[in-house]
Amino acid sequence: MKVGFVGLGGMGSTMAANLLKAGHEVRVWSRRPEPADRLRELGAHVVDSPHAAFQGDAFVSMLSDDAAVRAVVVEGGLFAAKTDTIHINSATISVALAEELTALQEKAGAPYLAAPVFGRPQAAAAAKLHVVAAGDPALIAKVQPLFDAIGQKTWIVGDRPSQANVVKICGNFMLASAIETLSEASALANAYDIPTKILLELMTSTLFASPAYQIYGKIITDQSFEPAGFRLKLGFKDLHLALAASEALNVPLPFGAALRDVFLEAIADGLEDVDWSAISQVAQRRAHLPRDPEKRKQW
Amino acid sequence: MKVGFVGLGGMGSTMAANLLKAGHEVRVWSRRPEPADRLRELGAHVVDSPHAAFQGDAFVSMLSDDAAVRAVVVEGGLFAAKTDTIHINSATISVALAEELTALQEKAGAPYLAAPVFGRPQAAAAAKLHVVAAGDPALIAKVQPLFDAIGQKTWIVGDRPSQANVVKICGNFMLASAIETLSEASALANAYDIPTKILLELMTSTLFASPAYQIYGKIITDQSFEPAGFRLKLGFKDLHLALAASEALNVPLPFGAALRDVFLEAIADGLEDVDWSAISQVAQRRAHLPRDPEKRKQW
Amino acid sequence: MKVGFVGLGGMGSTMAANLLKAGHEVRVWSRRPEPADRLRELGAHVVDSPHAAFQGDAFVSMLSDDAAVRAVVVEGGLFAAKTDTIHINSATISVALAEELTALQEKAGAPYLAAPVFGRPQAAAAAKLHVVAAGDPALIAKVQPLFDAIGQKTWIVGDRPSQANVVKICGNFMLASAIETLSEASALANAYDIPTKILLELMTSTLFASPAYQIYGKIITDQSFEPAGFRLKLGFKDLHLALAASEALNVPLPFGAALRDVFLEAIADGLEDVDWSAISQVAQRRAHLPRDPEKRKQW
Amino acid sequence: MKVGFVGLGGMGSTMAANLLKAGHEVRVWSRRPEPADRLRELGAHVVDSPHAAFQGDAFVSMLSDDAAVRAVVVEGGLFAAKTDTIHINSATISVALAEELTALQEKAGAPYLAAPVFGRPQAAAAAKLHVVAAGDPALIAKVQPLFDAIGQKTWIVGDRPSQANVVKICGNFMLASAIETLSEASALANAYDIPTKILLELMTSTLFASPAYQIYGKIITDQSFEPAGFRLKLGFKDLHLALAASEALNVPLPFGAALRDVFLEAIADGLEDVDWSAISQVAQRRAHLPRDPEKRKQW
Repeated sequence: MKVGFVGLGGMGSTMAANLLKAGHEVRVWSRRPEPADRLRELGAHVVDSPHAAFQGDAFVSMLSDDAAVRAVVVEGGLFAAKTDTIHINSATISVALAEELTALQEKAGAPYLAAPVFGRPQAAAAAKLHVVAAGDPALIAKVQPLFDAIGQKTWIVGDRPSQANVVKICGNFMLASAIETLSEASALANAYDIPTKILLELMTSTLFASPAYQIYGKIITDQSFEPAGFRLKLGFKDLHLALAASEALNVPLPFGAALRDVFLEAIADGLEDVDWSAISQVAQRRAHLPRDPEKRKQW
Repeated sequence: MKVGFVGLGGMGSTMAANLLKAGHEVRVWSRRPEPADRLRELGAHVVDSPHAAFQGDAFVSMLSDDAAVRAVVVEGGLFAAKTDTIHINSATISVALAEELTALQEKAGAPYLAAPVFGRPQAAAAAKLHVVAAGDPALIAKVQPLFDAIGQKTWIVGDRPSQANVVKICGNFMLASAIETLSEASALANAYDIPTKILLELMTSTLFASPAYQIYGKIITDQSFEPAGFRLKLGFKDLHLALAASEALNVPLPFGAALRDVFLEAIADGLEDVDWSAISQVAQRRAHLPRDPEKRKQW
Repeated sequence: MKVGFVGLGGMGSTMAANLLKAGHEVRVWSRRPEPADRLRELGAHVVDSPHAAFQGDAFVSMLSDDAAVRAVVVEGGLFAAKTDTIHINSATISVALAEELTALQEKAGAPYLAAPVFGRPQAAAAAKLHVVAAGDPALIAKVQPLFDAIGQKTWIVGDRPSQANVVKICGNFMLASAIETLSEASALANAYDIPTKILLELMTSTLFASPAYQIYGKIITDQSFEPAGFRLKLGFKDLHLALAASEALNVPLPFGAALRDVFLEAIADGLEDVDWSAISQVAQRRAHLPRDPEKRKQW
Repeated sequence: MKVGFVGLGGMGSTMAANLLKAGHEVRVWSRRPEPADRLRELGAHVVDSPHAAFQGDAFVSMLSDDAAVRAVVVEGGLFAAKTDTIHINSATISVALAEELTALQEKAGAPYLAAPVFGRPQAAAAAKLHVVAAGDPALIAKVQPLFDAIGQKTWIVGDRPSQANVVKICGNFMLASAIETLSEASALANAYDIPTKILLELMTSTLFASPAYQIYGKIITDQSFEPAGFRLKLGFKDLHLALAASEALNVPLPFGAALRDVFLEAIADGLEDVDWSAISQVAQRRAHLPRDPEKRKQW
């Protein structure tokens, strides 16, 4: 298929490369030249504007956040005219913006899908992402070869594009909740002189033997928050998407509300650029851990 | 080994049966005759008091809660005299009672270990429990054949018996947090017309592909809260053990605090005897879900 | 003084009337004709655009929210040129918009103050508001006669205009917290068969003998949520201003986070247009109160 | 009237002195000799056991907490026999213990009332306490002269003695919530460089012009947490009474749950013996305030 691609960050570049490897014809645009240059070597056609990329069978945007999507897509005027190019938005954006985009594209007569992905860099490289797609099923069917080129499975979650964004937001909320759960359980264990390593090895090899718990359990055990796999301030941004989505439809989220304060405290503590699992420091800090080893003996 | 056993509930009976199967000589006592009768058929020696069971190499108690342990062990006077019989307490009890028991047994000169277990009934039947042991390492080594008879692995978490209780309490707290996480994410998805089934199948086959999430994800999806795998009021009791342990050493637990209110609301709603994953009803109820399908169309 | 006035809602109209009564020359603009007509009878000069009102010594805007301020002031282009007319913004707006307005007016060379007010309609009518002013002290001194015409006291809280908005936001947050405190205490008392009336009469005539507690204590006791003194959805909007302000500078607010969920549940319950003290229904609802009198006897 | 009195702490001694001043005949018992000696000078008859004090028309106990009541009253065997002496329990105790005492005294055929008081030391000295009474109205009528001797008003809140304890617990919960509200609002204001003094003077002279807000607003503004008017660990004990009462009847308390963590963090920070309004330090600490040392000076 002929596909345009904008948003060549780490994930985007890997996805575009996999589209090329699968034999698709890919036009890329990037503000910075390096990512586009690397894809040119893999056979991509580098163009000089998002507009120039927005043609062919489909157009994938993997921009970083609402602001970038607003700048490139909305203010960039990509929805100005009727088109057959299917816009596949893979960015993690707010439900509100997703609904605004859907309305804009419907008005323009331009086909639109949302298809954010789950998976870490290794999974992206191996074309083993999980693609979460929503929108008109007929459109999804048309671009299925693209999803197959980047992922191991496509999960169709609804016929309104924003529903895929909701699912992505829910997934990130679940991750943040898992990290906080690990953090609180560790702080409680630590207070009783049980090392994080012992508690989390047990838990993540039994009841919680899943990627989410194993990955973050290990980072928390090792206190290896740098370099960041996912920066804490981006984690807060994603938590905020969940809170905003919950406020739009009046869904109380007690864990979400608690997480808000935990992230704020972590950011106030200067942790915004380390891995988001460093919110575990807040549980330690609130409990004044580690404590004086001398006092510990009295417990 | 020669071992006494009290606390013949579902888990206790299965554990005692596995001790017999492994060739140990087991004396059992039970308030109700049925469980003891069943074990007699498997070769157990049925005795008529906890005291009569409290002899030989070791004595395992798998009583239901603090009150039962207090009645049978403390008020029953099992620590009255010095003994070589190693008391292995496998009940899920409070840290405070665990420390009280340790002090009492030290005073009496009676060896004491805590060894609560993780695992569902099937795992118990297959002798595949995870045994969480704490106490004097030399004592643990002596009774290792007993742990091998009931579990697939023994996790030694500290040399103070109560530390094993802390780990058990942390594990149950993590389970409650996982259930609440699933509940809130589902409520948010539901508000956007995404079925629980779609969200949870995706999550529990990817990032959260672990027994805890899969088991409870399925119960919540199917709304199959009866018969209860673990009754909600017992779940609240265990949450309370975590809250009490956190208060004893001043460890804030924001998720714990939020869960307190969720469980209270569920119990006020009459759900105390269904499966504890029915706390998911609270997230639904607070968000007034499911909503009027007519209104849904406007979203 | 010569003063323009826009934002002729209930409070704004009363304030403008008091400016007239105090002998000031007032130009008013209103989208709807009625409020302006009423003020004309009191001597106001009715003009046909915000621009026409934005001249003379000062210009007071008492618009309803961020959106109205953005529409009339920012997009209306009131800051297009340098001027000596002092803009006094009395609206309850976000800190972010307050800072944006300050920057815009500094750029234009237009003097700007924020002066939200505290007080109920009766206090406004009696010119007994509390004016919370922030900005350049010299400017505040110049417009002091205007504040004296509407209020009993001017509280100068800082030299950055947005600081007055922060104080207004803090005050509303304290009100919401007081209402929730009354709600939870009442629910607890009610569960023990103690009527709200008895609890709140005691508390609001002793430790909590202040307008905030007395007013809301009485509404909650009487369940007289209609007509709304202050609509619940506006209360949530104001809570949101506090949450946003806290997120901008990373200030955790545990009561704020709890209130978020309480308001969402109340709105999901259809209470958005009744008085905001109806969040007390949420505490009742979560506790399943009132309960069956038959069951009550067993307690 | 002839009245016995035990529990001669600060409040108790003052109340006993006022009973003497009002002309009642008072027998006192105290573990420590000093408080009893001082009352002897005012005309009290000092006896050498609680039993010796438990006779005459009424017996007032103003013990410090559940443990003291349990030791002196329950284990001391004061309910062993039928009597006409009316036991007036003025201690702040748990609802559970209050109900246990009621049952014990009913069994013994001994009349029992609960009558905790609200008021600070000065109010107690001036016989201006607020007496919160519950129990059989006929009994309350009989001892009304005693209440009149110590308080300015008697509030009858129910016919089950424990209801007075619930009201006392609710009042203390409201105080803790007011302190936390002041703390959060101050932290938010401080982050925007608004001094606590300015915010709280405004609020406590207007909407929140009540003793509770004025007293604690001033302590927080002055950071005068020592000497403690009411020690933080006692404040946590009272919060715990509210949490326990709420768990007994399944009443969610979101502010109560948030306060739990705040108190734990304060105690972990070593603040258990300063005034309970020092929980305000937690809000400051979580927000990492004060920030810029230059700005710090202004606060």
